[in-house]
Amino acid sequence: MAVRLRQVPQDATPVCAPTERIEAFLEANNLETPFVVVDLDIVVDRYRQLAEALPMAEIFYAIKANPAPAILELLVSLGSSFDVASPAEVDMCLAAGADPSRISYGNTVKKRRDITYAYERGVRLFAFDCDAELDKLIELAPNATLFCRVATDGTGADWPLSRKFGCSPERATALLVRAAEKGHQVGLSFHVGSQQRDPVAWEAALASVGHVFEQLRDQGISPALVNLGGGFPGHYSNAVPAMREYGRVINAALARYVGDDVPRVLAEPGRYLVADAGVLQTEVVLVSRRSLDDDLRWVYLDCGVYTGLTEALGESIRFRIRTPHDGGPTGRVCLAGPTCDSADILYEHADYQLPLALEAGDRIEVLSTGAYTTTYSTVGFNGFPALRDYYLPAQNL
Amino acid sequence: MAVRLRQVPQDATPVCAPTERIEAFLEANNLETPFVVVDLDIVVDRYRQLAEALPMAEIFYAIKANPAPAILELLVSLGSSFDVASPAEVDMCLAAGADPSRISYGNTVKKRRDITYAYERGVRLFAFDCDAELDKLIELAPNATLFCRVATDGTGADWPLSRKFGCSPERATALLVRAAEKGHQVGLSFHVGSQQRDPVAWEAALASVGHVFEQLRDQGISPALVNLGGGFPGHYSNAVPAMREYGRVINAALARYVGDDVPRVLAEPGRYLVADAGVLQTEVVLVSRRSLDDDLRWVYLDCGVYTGLTEALGESIRFRIRTPHDGGPTGRVCLAGPTCDSADILYEHADYQLPLALEAGDRIEVLSTGAYTTTYSTVGFNGFPALRDYYLPAQNL
Repeated sequence: MAVRLRQVPQDATPVCAPTERIEAFLEANNLETPFVVVDLDIVVDRYRQLAEALPMAEIFYAIKANPAPAILELLVSLGSSFDVASPAEVDMCLAAGADPSRISYGNTVKKRRDITYAYERGVRLFAFDCDAELDKLIELAPNATLFCRVATDGTGADWPLSRKFGCSPERATALLVRAAEKGHQVGLSFHVGSQQRDPVAWEAALASVGHVFEQLRDQGISPALVNLGGGFPGHYSNAVPAMREYGRVINAALARYVGDDVPRVLAEPGRYLVADAGVLQTEVVLVSRRSLDDDLRWVYLDCGVYTGLTEALGESIRFRIRTPHDGGPTGRVCLAGPTCDSADILYEHADYQLPLALEAGDRIEVLSTGAYTTTYSTVGFNGFPALRDYYLPAQNL
Repeated sequence: MAVRLRQVPQDATPVCAPTERIEAFLEANNLETPFVVVDLDIVVDRYRQLAEALPMAEIFYAIKANPAPAILELLVSLGSSFDVASPAEVDMCLAAGADPSRISYGNTVKKRRDITYAYERGVRLFAFDCDAELDKLIELAPNATLFCRVATDGTGADWPLSRKFGCSPERATALLVRAAEKGHQVGLSFHVGSQQRDPVAWEAALASVGHVFEQLRDQGISPALVNLGGGFPGHYSNAVPAMREYGRVINAALARYVGDDVPRVLAEPGRYLVADAGVLQTEVVLVSRRSLDDDLRWVYLDCGVYTGLTEALGESIRFRIRTPHDGGPTGRVCLAGPTCDSADILYEHADYQLPLALEAGDRIEVLSTGAYTTTYSTVGFNGFPALRDYYLPAQNL
């Protein structure tokens, strides 16, 4: 399904062009490419938009999206909580000043010693989705609050999550009964898929949650929390609804299916808080045609799928691109990274159009690249270094 | 196309089990998983097998497969040359003691300053596949030998390379004529696709090379080299022909299509020299079933696509796996990595079978993992560190 790159999204959501501060940074510093620069004012803005749209939710930032200390420290100061996947991520949050009571170990796949590591540091919130993992938690994390991840089908997400994680609602009920019998506070989580562009996905998942909660209450168990997961979008080529639309759907579904007596509602935004804050600058290394009569150009950049633009793989995440020649006549391009690796292709089927004037040496900007870029970078495949990153301190606190 | 994991390859090629030295290393050191350990004796063995199969070829190790200093230093001592993709890879070869005359800059996508960097350090062999890149080389690399990469269709390769690189034979002829007119020695290269299991792929490519060489000779230009590229296989689940089979086909095709008057024949093995030398040890973190009546188990390892087993993506490279319970009854599994990322799945459709006795805490070995593991590893996604690596010095020099 080839989707045309839209220079301007076709709905009312903001275009998310580079901020003035990022423009000034790029202008003032002739830094070696590729790199990403993140305007933390945008992170503050997104945090507040999310808090306003979901006033009942505690925000647990999924730090895998970008665990830079500058981001974690900022979010600590805003009162955020944190979703982590490993002992190293626990440490990153603690180093940024987070209280361990604000850390959720959301990975359903944990080594015994990693559970113990987090528990000893004060973490009291853990995810699971099967008997074997629940066994570990009952043994190693007494009195912790345990939440079970139910599977959803991921419909509507650009990066669906349905296969690897989650159990059926029926299994979840049985597992949570067992956890409650061992004295744990219990809850449910789900994930509607990353870059989820249909808010109604949460409604379907919350209906399922409501059903499990009914079953639990029938057995005398009061659910302690519901975790809405992540999936809130960044601004790529495909238009996305505004955050208030997500809030409207989710708040209504919570009221309808879950009711008022669930003490805690959690949300785990990752991409939403940081993607739009980042701009990646990369240099054009080569522009070529396969033959003289072919109007398709191959544009090779000094950043590719091994140096941070990993989410272009499969071409479902379609980054918006700015060039020094925007406004001039354009033509079809395939975009690729700088390595000798044939898999290092960004967009071959997505029908990108870029200016005909584009040439080697030009610097171009890849927008909304604050999430899942620095951490997806390889250690240095083909001798190209890991993606560099810079952070502009927040001024709108 | 689901292919059953074969515990023993169904042809006469060696099974490539861990060597005695690797077994002893694993036994003696209870190292933190995941890690890969490489037996350099196997690299020596593969180097000699390749040299024997292709006696006319200069071996240019494609260091992207694994640029560990121990490997580069060993290959320098064996008389190998090197294929590089970036200035950093030039530096790695020089640091290992390679003479710059033995370095080929095989990346067809190069910044102007990177060409200059390599040229100033003595590199005199460069690849290109289009006018714009040839322009750079004519200007920046006087008297260097320039070879043009022609496109092949990659048929028969488990990881085809056909889309990103290479021009048509007709374009190659025109480009090489232009390079020769500027005083350069010229040649041709191609790449039949990584993990190429059909030696006949080289025959088709060499027929194309022969045709271009004829055209060049008709214009009074004597080709200086033909570069056979890489693609020679490691031993994964699918059986592969022995190296002598590749040699037989390639030598015959060289004689038939290229003739005796091409001074230099180059080969660029990467995977072939190092893949089978490595064993990756990883720990089982969790074994679960989606529901009680499902016989499919999900097996989560502490190594996944973000920590070195990247080539499992798409499931075309199917690593062989050894467990402590081999020989016992087995059942179907999906294999996944330890991150919260739903894309971190190794094998979901390849119908892997593993012992029913497998459980969390078991250490298992992923075989033939010496190539494209350490360098494909991310910097630390989800807080999981980059893949560690160890090298056992060669004793069979």
